[in-house]
Amino acid sequence: MSETTEPAAAQAPSAPAPGRESVIDLLGLLALGELLAFERMVFDARLAPDLGRRAALSEAAVGEIRNYRALADRLTELGADPAEAMAPFKEAFRSFDASTSPRDWLEALVKVYLGDAVADDFFRAVAEGLEAGDRALIETVLAETGAADLAAEELRAAVEADPSVTGRLSLWARRLVGEGINRAQGVAAANERLTALIVGGEGTLDALLRRLTRAHQDRMKSVGLNN
Amino acid sequence: MSETTEPAAAQAPSAPAPGRESVIDLLGLLALGELLAFERMVFDARLAPDLGRRAALSEAAVGEIRNYRALADRLTELGADPAEAMAPFKEAFRSFDASTSPRDWLEALVKVYLGDAVADDFFRAVAEGLEAGDRALIETVLAETGAADLAAEELRAAVEADPSVTGRLSLWARRLVGEGINRAQGVAAANERLTALIVGGEGTLDALLRRLTRAHQDRMKSVGLNN
Repeated sequence: MSETTEPAAAQAPSAPAPGRESVIDLLGLLALGELLAFERMVFDARLAPDLGRRAALSEAAVGEIRNYRALADRLTELGADPAEAMAPFKEAFRSFDASTSPRDWLEALVKVYLGDAVADDFFRAVAEGLEAGDRALIETVLAETGAADLAAEELRAAVEADPSVTGRLSLWARRLVGEGINRAQGVAAANERLTALIVGGEGTLDALLRRLTRAHQDRMKSVGLNN
Repeated sequence: MSETTEPAAAQAPSAPAPGRESVIDLLGLLALGELLAFERMVFDARLAPDLGRRAALSEAAVGEIRNYRALADRLTELGADPAEAMAPFKEAFRSFDASTSPRDWLEALVKVYLGDAVADDFFRAVAEGLEAGDRALIETVLAETGAADLAAEELRAAVEADPSVTGRLSLWARRLVGEGINRAQGVAAANERLTALIVGGEGTLDALLRRLTRAHQDRMKSVGLNN
């Protein structure tokens, strides 16, 4: 990547830092993910059985828009326009949401819990390949767990109160993961530069997706769902 | 109101402090208004012409859910359940929103600007009749002007860029006010105790509504709309 022939790599035996463009792609993807997670939680909060829980999910969603702001600020620092950096990924998220619209409060909670958890695993996986500053930003984003905590607590209580919901919600979770993998493959196919950064040490997108899916299965068990 | 016959009123020549129940009614109305203003802004943000402005409206909406929290906490302090205190007003807001769904970004902005402004006037009018602690709470809520500022700025720029939108948006603003007055009258008719607290010194609901409408007309001019 360097225009000189100096052996800079000798001082940094690990993989070279990713190029500015692919970091902008990645931050654009993550920023849009956070913005739309915020919107989705506020929309889906209307499915709550009472106004108290409806407000609680909206309040928890505020953490996501705060994360969006942190990522957008970093994009601006890098000289990128956040809106432009996010635009290439809009259609993938739109089509994911169009095909996974929750029908009730518990389905909405599974989507929050699962979406947040898979996003966190993804954040962790890609952070490994970033420079210290961007890794620190990702750590800040990961520290926000309000929505996932609320969803997990509500789900555990719901499964305990009525174990018969387990089958339906487990099926729904599998469907969310399937649709998510479809969109991820679409985004990867359309963005070579970004994909190279994301898969990094994993070697292939499939390997990364398999790792994320395994982590997801363990997490489903922790709220009483099957995988 | 006192069970004794002591002339307590001699020490407090102004109107007696409102009863706990009517304050709970009022705070429930205000809390639901803030919660739904938050949701509405996040929904309507999708009408934005680009992702940057979409995110900006969602970020500005966070001030409303913060206000909701302050009001809900006060309800809890008073021994009331916020969800229960809000429930009686749900239908009025739902039917207002169903009849005033913005068709584009500028209509959404008018609704934000106007809704916020009229709500603030209303907050100010009712605060006069409350005790010091509740008045201070209302001041905190009023200090939050992020969404209204954003909407006013965007509207002024839009009217300047294309003065032909003025007529359509002015008409839309009048429709919002008309629908708002309808719902306010409905809420007042169904909640005598609350209405007595709200109209307070104004004497009648109509007098209060006239005052709010006049303030609204001045404000419309300030963003370049007619009334």
